[in-house]
Amino acid sequence: MTLLITGGEVVGPTGRFAADVLVDGEKISALLAPGTGPADSAKTIDATGKLVIPGGIDVHTHMKLPFGGTFASDDFDTGTKAAAHGGTTTIVDFAVQRTGEVVQDGLAAWHALADGNAHIDYGFHMIIGGVDDDALKAMDQLVADEGVTSFKLFMAYPGVFYSDDGKILRAMQTARENGATIMMHAENGIAIDVLVAQALAKGQTDPVYHGITRPSILEGEATHRAIALAQVARDTPLYFVHLSASEALAEVAAARATGRNVFAETCPQYLYLTLEDQLGAPGFEGAKWVASPPLRPRDESHRDDLWRGLRTNDLAIVSTDHCPFCMKDQKELGLGDFSKIPNGIGTVEHRVDLVYQGVAEGKLSVERWVETIATTPARMFGLYPRKGVIAPGSDADIVLYDPNGRTTISAATHHMNLDYSAWEGVEIAGKVDTVISRGEVLVDRDGTYHGRKGRGRYLKRGLSSYLR
Amino acid sequence: MTLLITGGEVVGPTGRFAADVLVDGEKISALLAPGTGPADSAKTIDATGKLVIPGGIDVHTHMKLPFGGTFASDDFDTGTKAAAHGGTTTIVDFAVQRTGEVVQDGLAAWHALADGNAHIDYGFHMIIGGVDDDALKAMDQLVADEGVTSFKLFMAYPGVFYSDDGKILRAMQTARENGATIMMHAENGIAIDVLVAQALAKGQTDPVYHGITRPSILEGEATHRAIALAQVARDTPLYFVHLSASEALAEVAAARATGRNVFAETCPQYLYLTLEDQLGAPGFEGAKWVASPPLRPRDESHRDDLWRGLRTNDLAIVSTDHCPFCMKDQKELGLGDFSKIPNGIGTVEHRVDLVYQGVAEGKLSVERWVETIATTPARMFGLYPRKGVIAPGSDADIVLYDPNGRTTISAATHHMNLDYSAWEGVEIAGKVDTVISRGEVLVDRDGTYHGRKGRGRYLKRGLSSYLR
Amino acid sequence: MTLLITGGEVVGPTGRFAADVLVDGEKISALLAPGTGPADSAKTIDATGKLVIPGGIDVHTHMKLPFGGTFASDDFDTGTKAAAHGGTTTIVDFAVQRTGEVVQDGLAAWHALADGNAHIDYGFHMIIGGVDDDALKAMDQLVADEGVTSFKLFMAYPGVFYSDDGKILRAMQTARENGATIMMHAENGIAIDVLVAQALAKGQTDPVYHGITRPSILEGEATHRAIALAQVARDTPLYFVHLSASEALAEVAAARATGRNVFAETCPQYLYLTLEDQLGAPGFEGAKWVASPPLRPRDESHRDDLWRGLRTNDLAIVSTDHCPFCMKDQKELGLGDFSKIPNGIGTVEHRVDLVYQGVAEGKLSVERWVETIATTPARMFGLYPRKGVIAPGSDADIVLYDPNGRTTISAATHHMNLDYSAWEGVEIAGKVDTVISRGEVLVDRDGTYHGRKGRGRYLKRGLSSYLR
Amino acid sequence: MTLLITGGEVVGPTGRFAADVLVDGEKISALLAPGTGPADSAKTIDATGKLVIPGGIDVHTHMKLPFGGTFASDDFDTGTKAAAHGGTTTIVDFAVQRTGEVVQDGLAAWHALADGNAHIDYGFHMIIGGVDDDALKAMDQLVADEGVTSFKLFMAYPGVFYSDDGKILRAMQTARENGATIMMHAENGIAIDVLVAQALAKGQTDPVYHGITRPSILEGEATHRAIALAQVARDTPLYFVHLSASEALAEVAAARATGRNVFAETCPQYLYLTLEDQLGAPGFEGAKWVASPPLRPRDESHRDDLWRGLRTNDLAIVSTDHCPFCMKDQKELGLGDFSKIPNGIGTVEHRVDLVYQGVAEGKLSVERWVETIATTPARMFGLYPRKGVIAPGSDADIVLYDPNGRTTISAATHHMNLDYSAWEGVEIAGKVDTVISRGEVLVDRDGTYHGRKGRGRYLKRGLSSYLR
Ligand SMILES: [Zn+2]
Ligand SMILES: [Zn+2]
Ligand SMILES: [Zn+2]
Ligand SMILES: [Zn+2]
Ligand SMILES: [Zn+2]
Ligand SMILES: [Zn+2]
Ligand SMILES: [Zn+2]
Ligand SMILES: [Zn+2]
Repeated sequence: MTLLITGGEVVGPTGRFAADVLVDGEKISALLAPGTGPADSAKTIDATGKLVIPGGIDVHTHMKLPFGGTFASDDFDTGTKAAAHGGTTTIVDFAVQRTGEVVQDGLAAWHALADGNAHIDYGFHMIIGGVDDDALKAMDQLVADEGVTSFKLFMAYPGVFYSDDGKILRAMQTARENGATIMMHAENGIAIDVLVAQALAKGQTDPVYHGITRPSILEGEATHRAIALAQVARDTPLYFVHLSASEALAEVAAARATGRNVFAETCPQYLYLTLEDQLGAPGFEGAKWVASPPLRPRDESHRDDLWRGLRTNDLAIVSTDHCPFCMKDQKELGLGDFSKIPNGIGTVEHRVDLVYQGVAEGKLSVERWVETIATTPARMFGLYPRKGVIAPGSDADIVLYDPNGRTTISAATHHMNLDYSAWEGVEIAGKVDTVISRGEVLVDRDGTYHGRKGRGRYLKRGLSSYLR
Repeated sequence: MTLLITGGEVVGPTGRFAADVLVDGEKISALLAPGTGPADSAKTIDATGKLVIPGGIDVHTHMKLPFGGTFASDDFDTGTKAAAHGGTTTIVDFAVQRTGEVVQDGLAAWHALADGNAHIDYGFHMIIGGVDDDALKAMDQLVADEGVTSFKLFMAYPGVFYSDDGKILRAMQTARENGATIMMHAENGIAIDVLVAQALAKGQTDPVYHGITRPSILEGEATHRAIALAQVARDTPLYFVHLSASEALAEVAAARATGRNVFAETCPQYLYLTLEDQLGAPGFEGAKWVASPPLRPRDESHRDDLWRGLRTNDLAIVSTDHCPFCMKDQKELGLGDFSKIPNGIGTVEHRVDLVYQGVAEGKLSVERWVETIATTPARMFGLYPRKGVIAPGSDADIVLYDPNGRTTISAATHHMNLDYSAWEGVEIAGKVDTVISRGEVLVDRDGTYHGRKGRGRYLKRGLSSYLR
Repeated sequence: MTLLITGGEVVGPTGRFAADVLVDGEKISALLAPGTGPADSAKTIDATGKLVIPGGIDVHTHMKLPFGGTFASDDFDTGTKAAAHGGTTTIVDFAVQRTGEVVQDGLAAWHALADGNAHIDYGFHMIIGGVDDDALKAMDQLVADEGVTSFKLFMAYPGVFYSDDGKILRAMQTARENGATIMMHAENGIAIDVLVAQALAKGQTDPVYHGITRPSILEGEATHRAIALAQVARDTPLYFVHLSASEALAEVAAARATGRNVFAETCPQYLYLTLEDQLGAPGFEGAKWVASPPLRPRDESHRDDLWRGLRTNDLAIVSTDHCPFCMKDQKELGLGDFSKIPNGIGTVEHRVDLVYQGVAEGKLSVERWVETIATTPARMFGLYPRKGVIAPGSDADIVLYDPNGRTTISAATHHMNLDYSAWEGVEIAGKVDTVISRGEVLVDRDGTYHGRKGRGRYLKRGLSSYLR
Repeated sequence: MTLLITGGEVVGPTGRFAADVLVDGEKISALLAPGTGPADSAKTIDATGKLVIPGGIDVHTHMKLPFGGTFASDDFDTGTKAAAHGGTTTIVDFAVQRTGEVVQDGLAAWHALADGNAHIDYGFHMIIGGVDDDALKAMDQLVADEGVTSFKLFMAYPGVFYSDDGKILRAMQTARENGATIMMHAENGIAIDVLVAQALAKGQTDPVYHGITRPSILEGEATHRAIALAQVARDTPLYFVHLSASEALAEVAAARATGRNVFAETCPQYLYLTLEDQLGAPGFEGAKWVASPPLRPRDESHRDDLWRGLRTNDLAIVSTDHCPFCMKDQKELGLGDFSKIPNGIGTVEHRVDLVYQGVAEGKLSVERWVETIATTPARMFGLYPRKGVIAPGSDADIVLYDPNGRTTISAATHHMNLDYSAWEGVEIAGKVDTVISRGEVLVDRDGTYHGRKGRGRYLKRGLSSYLR
């Protein structure tokens, strides 16, 4: 059963060229000079005028994450279906272990959530919320047997996910041995909790104080500290999630300039939105954008610096930190106390578009767009060349993107299970045209959805391609 | 007439995957899942166990360059034949204009040198030795009509190629308008000439004083200055040739960290050889390694820093600055006066191997090897995707490289017209296996050479892919 | 009762000039053009050929400190007598509060130790080992009423003196309000404890492992973190004690370059001694030099960088961290387990000499010598112009120093209560000639000691002169 | 003949203390505890409530400088009288040598200008406009015999004072041997001249284009270059005059952070005035502020950075670059062509006040005020301890400054020979109260002037106190 994509321009991280792509079953079987494909393909898609790119890979999602007494509103069914609509054909979600829990139990629970529900392929990172001897041993086992090769630690959320510097160091030492990557939530949560308590004591309860009590200097501090600890652990590969602040970027850039195994992602919210404009919206409106780290002050250099970091590769990846909570019954838990607002923003459906908008505005090359949303995610997290590249033998995860199309984002039209949109009314100068997952068209040009829950498969991942 | 390369592993800048490559005439026509190629190919090459990479591109050569009263010993015949033997299938050589000369005449002279002589494809940069109104106008014409889109200026060699800062600024302004790239020889030649005169006055005439009178701080200085001038010229694309010094690298890295259009190459000699070990060899032996900038002191950080720069992409390209002079009758012109030794080292045949040796030693990934010797040269100098990538529609310039082979460098076996080797006895843990240029096998596995002078074609180049 | 010092050269931080100094009672009453003093002085000291400098001020001593089940071997009697012999006429010692203790009780205990025992004047810093609401209130009271205007916190020694980042932040906020200076022991003790446990588990019990388990990167990390926290606390004045590492110095320098209220001291041991040469001495010998932070590796840049830091004023002060423990019965507590060796080195007697040796070796100007051992300590800790300067109205704390003298350090001759010398056999190209405290000659030229316990007075200190 | 100054507070670079000052003839004879001075002084001045500081030293003036076909409007009579009114009791002016001229002749010419005319003491730097063998020999002679120990070179003004990098290097090498300090006008004049010609060709002739054609990046560039050349000359002491730009300050700070012999001054105009507000004033008004380097853009960081540099000592001195030209007949030479406007601003009378205003506004400590206007100038240029300090044996150059006074600057009241004021209407929250030069009251409290031309003496200067 073959599929021929003709007339498009294949775009990869180092350039673009006209080529036809032949798919055989679930795999890409050939890249061909335009017009030289077999005449007898079962199906042909005309990609004239379209960019042919590897399917998007979102390496930071939290389907059904329990947080503050509720759960992220997207499950693996709704969340991956929304992702597919937005041109993302793979996610890597975070399984969770907490203090005292068995790591493998946490992984099993996440398999149970995903199994039979996902519309697209998925892998798991593991959150290690309780570093101890057992958890460290489990890290080895997950790398060796389970295809889980990356572990997230938290420098924030004391009493929930927080690891102190000694625990972080031990986990890093373990990762240095087994080849895994340490992912870090870098905010100094101990200091932040003092600021939060002081704010609440002063009656500063509105959502904007969520941002004010988490100053960017404390993200920069934690970033520096994690880099130092990783150096003590003989340059453990270290990946900063959801980097939001100029100070943090400067630390990452300084480490990278010395050749260190240090990497980072940012998220669309930090590239576009601000503390004043969104988090500081009147009344309780700002709760829509409560996430950690928070949106940063408009008049500081953060957004410009992050776009520049994407250009210079000090920021390697754009992921979403997709963690949606509805306003009703969920965000509302924090009415009168910002510290009770569930943390998270839902963007899994819009990432490919939102980064493309940077291309349209001249902030990023089209090659870096592909690299930051697909190729580097695959290489960083052990999915390459199965995913992230248009090449013979790779999974036929392909997106046709229309640079002349137009997309308007709205809660009225999105597919996420979320009663508002953090991006309401945002316009994109481009459009997801066709989405193909393992050779199967999930979204076709007229927008019809052909996917179904359960077709997505678990991906056992290898080690990072960037490991030195 | 088709050629099928089977069983190999295609390596590109962002990864590697098993694929067969089908060549039709001069072009690559398809990349195919292994074993799925047509059974009826006119010719098949078994690439099992070999790396299949785009042909090497050496963007810095000086065939037949006049220097100090003599000429570089390789012409386009001998030099490009030697290049082909070493896995390089494209060169970009430097045509020369001097003060008072017409730029277009210089270009015509270089066409005359190359025409009918080259074994592989070639393009030209233009050295502008005399910046004036006519030369600036000529730059526009060369970009528009001649496929010459990069211009080299010199901050060294007063009275020969030297441009003062005002001339440099004007040329940069012109390039900013027409899209060309300014290539810079960054050494403070005015200060160096004082040091040279002082050394000679003290009787310090041996080759090692060539290095001592050109301290690395003066390469760093010139690099900083050129970056500042390019900023005044609104971020003209600026490419530093033959970067040799930690100080210069630090300036490039600092500029790149701010997102500037600043790029650099280094050369194998700076990655491996030293002032003490080679330039300071007994007697007149050191003359073999007299080049500018000079080899740097062994106990300083230069070599480690350059390898790190290749990893971090602060150094984008490895080229050779191939400019060979024989010891006899040429280097000997400087017996008793190091300042009269013709400047240059011949390496065009060994670049692909010498950088691969860094892969073998764990200093560089195999992907960065391909990127620095082929893909980035093509993208930087407007040859992509015709050159520098294994993709349908690209020229079938392909090298099969044997990671299990072994190469020993010697004047006794090299193909350059040079009576010594700067790399005598050096061993490489890899081997150029097969070299294909536009679909034609130039060097086959048993070492037989099938090329011929005159088959190489002139390449009109476009603008840099990196231009912002 | 007057004293006239004639013929000497007065040296201050910004220069030197010939002048006679007239003392009236406890105070300096005049600086006079040479030879113009009153003929009828009760006493005259001929200072011809001598440098006349303000008495040394050692702002970091630990008389009788309880540590690891024993007490520092010098008390206020022996320790201040030794200090006087070495040209130090003022110390600022650390009173101690621990978790759960009342700050004022700790201060009272230190008054009890010093009262009636000190030979020279003294002040107190306060160690806050247990930051809580009461301790924060006590800080205000000590600043307002007790002349204690500086508070030391620890990022090391979990379970003993350690404050977490939230406690540090709260103490900094309090200091920002009341004008006090926060003094910081900057080592990441949480991570260090992991390394210590791992070393002991591997049987690495020798003294050298004390140094190996406290890598300099963890001092740099803590330094960066404290600077960030002080920034969150709106640039609280922050003073790093016993800075030992290049990484830490770089952080201080970076903060100072932006104009921040960040200061640091180093100690003689970090300027001269090394991990290999002293801490790594055979057998248990290295225990003599166990202190925290530890001596640093010989072949790294630490010592050169620290001397440079003294020149550039990124290091403002040299103090001793005088905390002596005898080998017998004290250091020996750590036989077979380096982590049980009491931490500390005794140097209070040799600081003025050891820094002068830097002058003799051309590493420091004679002006900076005076500034780092006397003037800046006075200004930094609220004692200026009472102490630290030769000026009318100041306390007549004066040292005559002989730049042509010679001093050999030995346990056989020192006055500290310590059964070994960390500086055994070290030669100084200079000599403390005469030491005067509040107009009274304590040590005269022939070495006779005229001081006595109990003559030293408590100094209520003001706020730092450097406060912005 | 004695003079007693009672009741004041003596302020020096490291602190302040109450003391009376006794003057005997031309010298300070004693500093005395308040109220302890001799009852029989010939004269007593009550300094109650006043700051008693060393007389100001302005190390950058250009009396009668020939420039662009005219001469600076102040001569040694008018200029030094004005200086005295403003609390400056010493100047160091620039004697001039041009290409082909004999250095000693230039010095003699300046002696002729000053001799019999100066109201206050003065020294000379030497401008070397034509570096050649003779000039280099002359530098040795001036250092050895003439008390001229500092030499200014220009990286700007090609064809007038400009030295190329080879000449600069040679002069630096000479200075490194004889101990002199190289003073540098750091602007890339070769590049600037291109920008000037381009602006004029476009009809951009207004004064503001003087600033626009001298971008700060070209001051930063030249600063970096001079620092590099001084490093090649084995760390020749290097002093940047009239530093105006953030980029230049960053280069100085970076060099100083490594311990280099690099120093800089700034001038009041760069601390307060801007390209838009002054140089861009309507019509030809901006000509009043045409100087090189130019005033910098208001919305860039220059002024804040310069104030911070004064605090951190990366800027050591505030001098004026006093070089006044009247609007009538002088500045007017540039009507219709900004490049013909004589370069210079007149501030010699207001420096002490303008820097004090920074104290009043909390930007600088009172100690740094004294250090930057008096003590460091003396130490930097070999006048210490004769000048720059209130100490026995020093020249009795003393200023009483009233921190409660108020000064308004206006051409109507100033004493400079200048038909406008660059500071018209500026208010100072302080006032020069009494000015004493070598024991003689030049300006008394009611403003009466007691000085006279010819009383000022030539100062043979020694080497810099900062020389390493
Ligand atoms: Zn997180
Ligand atoms: Zn997350
Ligand atoms: Zn060159
Ligand atoms: Zn070249
Ligand atoms: Zn401590
Ligand atoms: Zn201590
Ligand atoms: Zn100047
Ligand atoms: Zn000037």
